[in-house]
Amino acid sequence: MENIYFTPGPTQLHPAVKGFLHDALKKDICSISHRSQIFRELYVEAVTNIKKLMGTPEEFEVFFLASATEIMERIIQSCVHSKSFHVVNGAFSKRFFDIACMLKKNAEQAEYNHGADVELCELKVPDDAELICITQNETSTGFWIPPIDFKKLTKTNKDSLLAVDVVSSAPCAALDFAVVDLAFFSVQKCFGLPSGLGVLIAGPESLKKAQDLESRNVNPMSFHSLVSLAECGAKEQTYETPNVLGIYLIAKMASWMLEYGIERIRLDMEAKQELLKSAISEMDGLSFFVENKRFQSPTVSTLSSQRDLKALRANLAAEGLHVGSGYGDFKDKQIRIANFPSHSLLDFERLVAALKKYSMHLGDR
Amino acid sequence: MENIYFTPGPTQLHPAVKGFLHDALKKDICSISHRSQIFRELYVEAVTNIKKLMGTPEEFEVFFLASATEIMERIIQSCVHSKSFHVVNGAFSKRFFDIACMLKKNAEQAEYNHGADVELCELKVPDDAELICITQNETSTGFWIPPIDFKKLTKTNKDSLLAVDVVSSAPCAALDFAVVDLAFFSVQKCFGLPSGLGVLIAGPESLKKAQDLESRNVNPMSFHSLVSLAECGAKEQTYETPNVLGIYLIAKMASWMLEYGIERIRLDMEAKQELLKSAISEMDGLSFFVENKRFQSPTVSTLSSQRDLKALRANLAAEGLHVGSGYGDFKDKQIRIANFPSHSLLDFERLVAALKKYSMHLGDR
Repeated sequence: MENIYFTPGPTQLHPAVKGFLHDALKKDICSISHRSQIFRELYVEAVTNIKKLMGTPEEFEVFFLASATEIMERIIQSCVHSKSFHVVNGAFSKRFFDIACMLKKNAEQAEYNHGADVELCELKVPDDAELICITQNETSTGFWIPPIDFKKLTKTNKDSLLAVDVVSSAPCAALDFAVVDLAFFSVQKCFGLPSGLGVLIAGPESLKKAQDLESRNVNPMSFHSLVSLAECGAKEQTYETPNVLGIYLIAKMASWMLEYGIERIRLDMEAKQELLKSAISEMDGLSFFVENKRFQSPTVSTLSSQRDLKALRANLAAEGLHVGSGYGDFKDKQIRIANFPSHSLLDFERLVAALKKYSMHLGDR
Repeated sequence: MENIYFTPGPTQLHPAVKGFLHDALKKDICSISHRSQIFRELYVEAVTNIKKLMGTPEEFEVFFLASATEIMERIIQSCVHSKSFHVVNGAFSKRFFDIACMLKKNAEQAEYNHGADVELCELKVPDDAELICITQNETSTGFWIPPIDFKKLTKTNKDSLLAVDVVSSAPCAALDFAVVDLAFFSVQKCFGLPSGLGVLIAGPESLKKAQDLESRNVNPMSFHSLVSLAECGAKEQTYETPNVLGIYLIAKMASWMLEYGIERIRLDMEAKQELLKSAISEMDGLSFFVENKRFQSPTVSTLSSQRDLKALRANLAAEGLHVGSGYGDFKDKQIRIANFPSHSLLDFERLVAALKKYSMHLGDR
């Protein structure tokens, strides 16, 4: 039986990865030194392809870290002296806030989640917030903040930097780097790669802020501070021995996506999502956790029911269709379905048919 | 032409890895959730095999991080309030010291390197040092501190924790966990695996110290503090999405090594090293940078010459034999040769023959 993983990360390995791995072994990629010319070329290739794919301006830098969680920590360490502000719409934006607290920052949070009926720009950002942190696509709930909303928020808060977690939406979400200073993701979501690599895109204002804080010597530093990352990146290298295979794979996957076309990837995503939405609308016992359509994520759908969904998940899994459980307290009350480039329209047709079959009695009271 | 990488890390991928990667793909290891039962079993398998292979007592814990460099930072963050002491014998022990300084600790260092003619235990450790940091095998210079020397040093410094960097010697160096509180390595050295994973072995005293500091709330915390690592580890999980494939590969490689036998691995290492040593002793123009035999690393040999060694390296590389350059300022004045389990006796015979051929005129003045 063929297994398909609709879990929202790690997710179904992209079908192209097998070939990339084969090539990597053939080219001895895992044996080469991270100080060699071959590695430097690989580093440049990865950075160039990611920037091209994401529409990132020339003056932004791309860095490789271990995970999105690490990146949250490094951003706070590097860009915040005393105060950060967090839009909290689920477990991962909460994690960003928690990390700021761990680092003893005077962090403030504002809830903005599935019940939202206000505009993002109506949130009150403290005047002295050095950094606004937003999780664009909450993997825990499927609550999506349309990237177009960032502009209005930053308009009234010109002095704050904006950091955007696009973990389960990059490169599908179109970011406007005129208002985004920092964006980051991990590679086991939309890129369909093995986990173990986080990618940070950092703009000139964030680097300036990090340099300023470092020159004033007010924060503890790190080998992965933005300043150190930039210094090593200028030599097309990393401070430590990085996940060389991971960097190779993202270089190749981004190249694959560029060739396939980002617009086509987005259209595929919409087609699969329409299929799912239309099926759910016809079902009695399953509905989108995020009711407001504007905030429904196209890449991670969280479905709720009055009934326990453990049996539904098990039935789907028995057919090789692995969907995610709900997050945290919602473990058995929700299921989560990833719609990433690894998932084909055919995969979604299989899933929708099985959902129809197994959810038949969920609506019965 | 078959390439063999004698570079001291990343190094020649172990010949068994190809099969492990193939199995990982077949088992969908890269698609599974890091919160799933399959992952938890994998986590336990990796921890169990590593402990068995390293002779680690039951009460020690094993954690997975991104790199040895990250581990240096996490150890200092978690176990030092104000003062650490560093035995500096090359670039990596210096890095450990630098990281303590970045974190604004009152770190002290003592040089103890290739010219050493004193015993390790004669170094003066400050009474208030909370942590002693030693790089057991300096990858930058091939200076090896026999692990037996740790005991005498800690005897006179009972209140300090001992952290040992065994990056390019684990599991070949036999550690006495009665005196070692923390040991760490990365997987791209003796384990011959793709880079991107660091392994930390932490004893009860280090965890107690970390808990004490955390409860007193005196240090900034991290998602990768020893306390958080232990909390997540108790659930056979990690805080973030880790390098799942890397954890799979170390579980399988440690299992492979257990089956092959750690004693046999050490005997292989000695046989290859004897071959190299005997060849070098007959050469005019090449000699061990570390003169004192007691401090010569069996896993990383650094060879010096009066002449520039760039041409020698290029000649070897032309035959597919890739040796490391010297570290830092010694780039062209030294070569470094790794002797890891990935390297066979046959590889060393090829290398020695080529060294004899190409070093013929190095001794001429």
